[in-house]
Amino acid sequence: MQSWQPQTSRLYQTGATLDKTPGRNRPEIAREQQVEQRIHHAGLAGKIMSAEEAATHIQPGMTVGMSGFTGSGYPKAVPLALAGRIEAAQGRGEKFALRVLTGASTAPELDGALAKAGGIDFRLPYQSDPELRARINRGEIDYMDVHLGQVAQYTWFGFLGKIDLAVVEVAGILPDGRLIPSTSIGNNKTWLDLADKVILEVNSTQPLGLDGMHDIYYGTALPPNRQPIPLTQAGDHIGEPYLRVDPAKVVAVVKTHAPDRLGRFTPPDETSQRIAGHLVEFLKHEIRMGRLPENLLPLQSGVGNIANAVLGGLRDGGFSNLTAFTEVIQDGMLDLIRTDTIRMASATALSLSPEGVQEFARNIDHYRERIVLRPQEISNHAELVRRLGCIGINGMVEADLYGNVNSTHVAGTSIINGIGGSGDFARNGFLSCFVTPSTAKNGAISCIVPMVSHVDHTEHDVCIIVTEQGLADLRGLSPKQRARTVIANCAHPDYRPLLQDYFDRACRDSKGKHTPHLLGEALSWHERLVEQGSMRPN
Amino acid sequence: MQSWQPQTSRLYQTGATLDKTPGRNRPEIAREQQVEQRIHHAGLAGKIMSAEEAATHIQPGMTVGMSGFTGSGYPKAVPLALAGRIEAAQGRGEKFALRVLTGASTAPELDGALAKAGGIDFRLPYQSDPELRARINRGEIDYMDVHLGQVAQYTWFGFLGKIDLAVVEVAGILPDGRLIPSTSIGNNKTWLDLADKVILEVNSTQPLGLDGMHDIYYGTALPPNRQPIPLTQAGDHIGEPYLRVDPAKVVAVVKTHAPDRLGRFTPPDETSQRIAGHLVEFLKHEIRMGRLPENLLPLQSGVGNIANAVLGGLRDGGFSNLTAFTEVIQDGMLDLIRTDTIRMASATALSLSPEGVQEFARNIDHYRERIVLRPQEISNHAELVRRLGCIGINGMVEADLYGNVNSTHVAGTSIINGIGGSGDFARNGFLSCFVTPSTAKNGAISCIVPMVSHVDHTEHDVCIIVTEQGLADLRGLSPKQRARTVIANCAHPDYRPLLQDYFDRACRDSKGKHTPHLLGEALSWHERLVEQGSMRPN
Repeated sequence: MQSWQPQTSRLYQTGATLDKTPGRNRPEIAREQQVEQRIHHAGLAGKIMSAEEAATHIQPGMTVGMSGFTGSGYPKAVPLALAGRIEAAQGRGEKFALRVLTGASTAPELDGALAKAGGIDFRLPYQSDPELRARINRGEIDYMDVHLGQVAQYTWFGFLGKIDLAVVEVAGILPDGRLIPSTSIGNNKTWLDLADKVILEVNSTQPLGLDGMHDIYYGTALPPNRQPIPLTQAGDHIGEPYLRVDPAKVVAVVKTHAPDRLGRFTPPDETSQRIAGHLVEFLKHEIRMGRLPENLLPLQSGVGNIANAVLGGLRDGGFSNLTAFTEVIQDGMLDLIRTDTIRMASATALSLSPEGVQEFARNIDHYRERIVLRPQEISNHAELVRRLGCIGINGMVEADLYGNVNSTHVAGTSIINGIGGSGDFARNGFLSCFVTPSTAKNGAISCIVPMVSHVDHTEHDVCIIVTEQGLADLRGLSPKQRARTVIANCAHPDYRPLLQDYFDRACRDSKGKHTPHLLGEALSWHERLVEQGSMRPN
Repeated sequence: MQSWQPQTSRLYQTGATLDKTPGRNRPEIAREQQVEQRIHHAGLAGKIMSAEEAATHIQPGMTVGMSGFTGSGYPKAVPLALAGRIEAAQGRGEKFALRVLTGASTAPELDGALAKAGGIDFRLPYQSDPELRARINRGEIDYMDVHLGQVAQYTWFGFLGKIDLAVVEVAGILPDGRLIPSTSIGNNKTWLDLADKVILEVNSTQPLGLDGMHDIYYGTALPPNRQPIPLTQAGDHIGEPYLRVDPAKVVAVVKTHAPDRLGRFTPPDETSQRIAGHLVEFLKHEIRMGRLPENLLPLQSGVGNIANAVLGGLRDGGFSNLTAFTEVIQDGMLDLIRTDTIRMASATALSLSPEGVQEFARNIDHYRERIVLRPQEISNHAELVRRLGCIGINGMVEADLYGNVNSTHVAGTSIINGIGGSGDFARNGFLSCFVTPSTAKNGAISCIVPMVSHVDHTEHDVCIIVTEQGLADLRGLSPKQRARTVIANCAHPDYRPLLQDYFDRACRDSKGKHTPHLLGEALSWHERLVEQGSMRPN
């Protein structure tokens, strides 16, 4: 019977008995029991129902706040059941669409399924689902791209309307009704506080060892009643480990058993490693110049291959005693926490590969002492990013000669994912670094262009640009000084002469010579890309 | 003899005697004595010299931090003497140019004289002098446009190099060597702390009643040692009333007698009043909706005619008990403080017309209880702007359909003044409002365009756009939703059909339909302006 024993929380033991329902097999029964063992509040246990039943609480036109941040901690069952309900309604000729607000990107079971069903009218913030993105770029779904650190306060301010319902994944429910958060916190505190109705998904696959790793700050307020946020180190605990919810608002509790659906971790390629090399060399130079302490300042690192390469570069570069104040902990950062290169990391989500999840579960007691998960309004808070002096390292689509950065749009019109938290860190941190390979699509695209086709980070907010070609340090430079170093250090050799030619002619022919441009030609590289599939001239 | 009595500080009386130097007339002697009465530190009194002598401490290639913010509190004599020294050197065929850092804009005696002499190689931040601007736009001077709230920390971080020398105007020097600040604080604390050498100008025309109106916060630090800034209300005093300086660093003290050179206050025109009317109506609506308290939240107001009209509109609209947390107090705001419509205003500078200066001096005790002047790193601090929830109201050059704002450039290439503090408030405040007449140059320019020619505030940071035509509330809207309301509410009727036509065709023909654009046409309005002098089609 040993394998039947439900896993229990460190903190809570219950006397739940085995399910005797006929027709259910033993593993399924065990799974159901494991999750019931996580629901310690009698009133909420009485609201356990199927995802399909729960989804009947969601009506057309509602604004629904959902959990989920970079593919972790999103609800696994209710959105799928909801998509079914929507498809049935559409089949009957009834319109059924929602306003969907999340923490950040989710997964095919949420954004993908709802978008495919035609069930999303409006969506914010960051997303990455192919089906959702395609519909946004066909003009079928209204998408608003908000700084991740500002979604919660915009909701509290009333700028986004009323939150009708929240669907939030948790790892367990305490006897007093408080919730053990899951692998991401995102905007869950805000959705739970503000929604009229709440549906909880209790997921048996999320490790109960997460308990104690979260820090939910309940000290926020609306102006003019705000007080300083008492956090001065990345690892400070300033709140409580559990999410609060009014049990009377909870209309359904749904048991789920599916892990976060996250991709495999791929080792950094050569381009990423070269980018990481330039950045690590630069950080060492800054230490030598006395502008950074030996253990740097809290790192913020965007998601993906280059970010992981940079973290690997720091580990291999002999750094130690580092800290992170960031949004997401991916495998690259987990590895640095494992080896104590990073001694403390603050984030709002764990976004790990299946191997990363195993490693995390295996050494969860080690990680619990070194990881704090917070609401994204805190992980990305202007006050804290400024105070801590974060070093922001974020990917981008393209940069222009003058240091403006496009993080979101292909050729100015199609959204990729969204600005995420890059603006929260670039504007208020100590150092804002933006990284990209110098070209994309086998060289058809130059990621350094005369003028970016969309601006997410202005010339005022960009310190460092890095490609595999080199690093441009834009601090303290005028626009033309920036252009010279960007062309010399970051442009791909295939595009460098073209950029130099544009810049030379702009310096000669531009009406104003503070930020020289040829207005008729500034976006021509993107036009060529759209019309001919390449930025290269004919 | 009554008129000969030197004015004395509230706090300090001295026994200085009359100047008996032969050949000086009585008013001049009185003036000199008035200023000597303000220099209570014996060591510093011993360093009194002429501006010409003081200027010899400034060498070619130096980085010089100067006082001055929106035309107030700038040094009146040393820059002019320096310009003479530079012209003499140039006359001998020697290059003599400097890196000049200030608080914000200064006056012809500083930016104008030095630019005309060819004495500025590099300048930051905000400027407004015609001579300086012309040279920047001819490509002769490198200008860097930095958020006003970030200049001080960039200097402390070492991003702008070493500060060789500071030239700072003060209202007086205490016996212990501390300085009574002048009409602006700007970056003076940072220049005094970090410069190798310091030149002080003690200006007899700045009212000593300023004493006690300043609040210099000495609690800043470099990360990782930063602590929360203990300010929770606009009027909080968190520092000390005087600037500190190491007397050993002071190489010269120069006596000056010229007032800040500021323009007259012109009553708002009809366009400004209509803009103000839309904004005041909107704020009242927000109060009714429960999104703003009756006395609003701390106001930040940019400079100029529209800003003054908005303040007048608030007064006439029956508002009371208001507060301001802003950069500059101009006549419009002074009037609201006089009438107690605003009960407390925090800023970094007083920028008053000659009539405003008189009114200020006349009722200085009233104003001292209601005005706090701070370093600009505090008046514009991300942490405080976010905590207080400022309502930012700033002018702009143009906005585009999707809510991107250009605050700085004509047709993408010529700088006007600079971003100022608009970014500090737009990114982190409660509400970011941008205002402009819908057209400029007698209708030759539409201030609503398909795509802005330069981005200072991204789509992520702009809540409200107001022209005399109306107000567009962009909160919670996708790009296309924003475009519809901007066209309908803000565009001038002459340009509205052209914008609608662009948007319709973009929605039809744009490759991506999230942010629809016709890349070959997006900047064509600006091209026409440059080539034909008007955005109107032929």
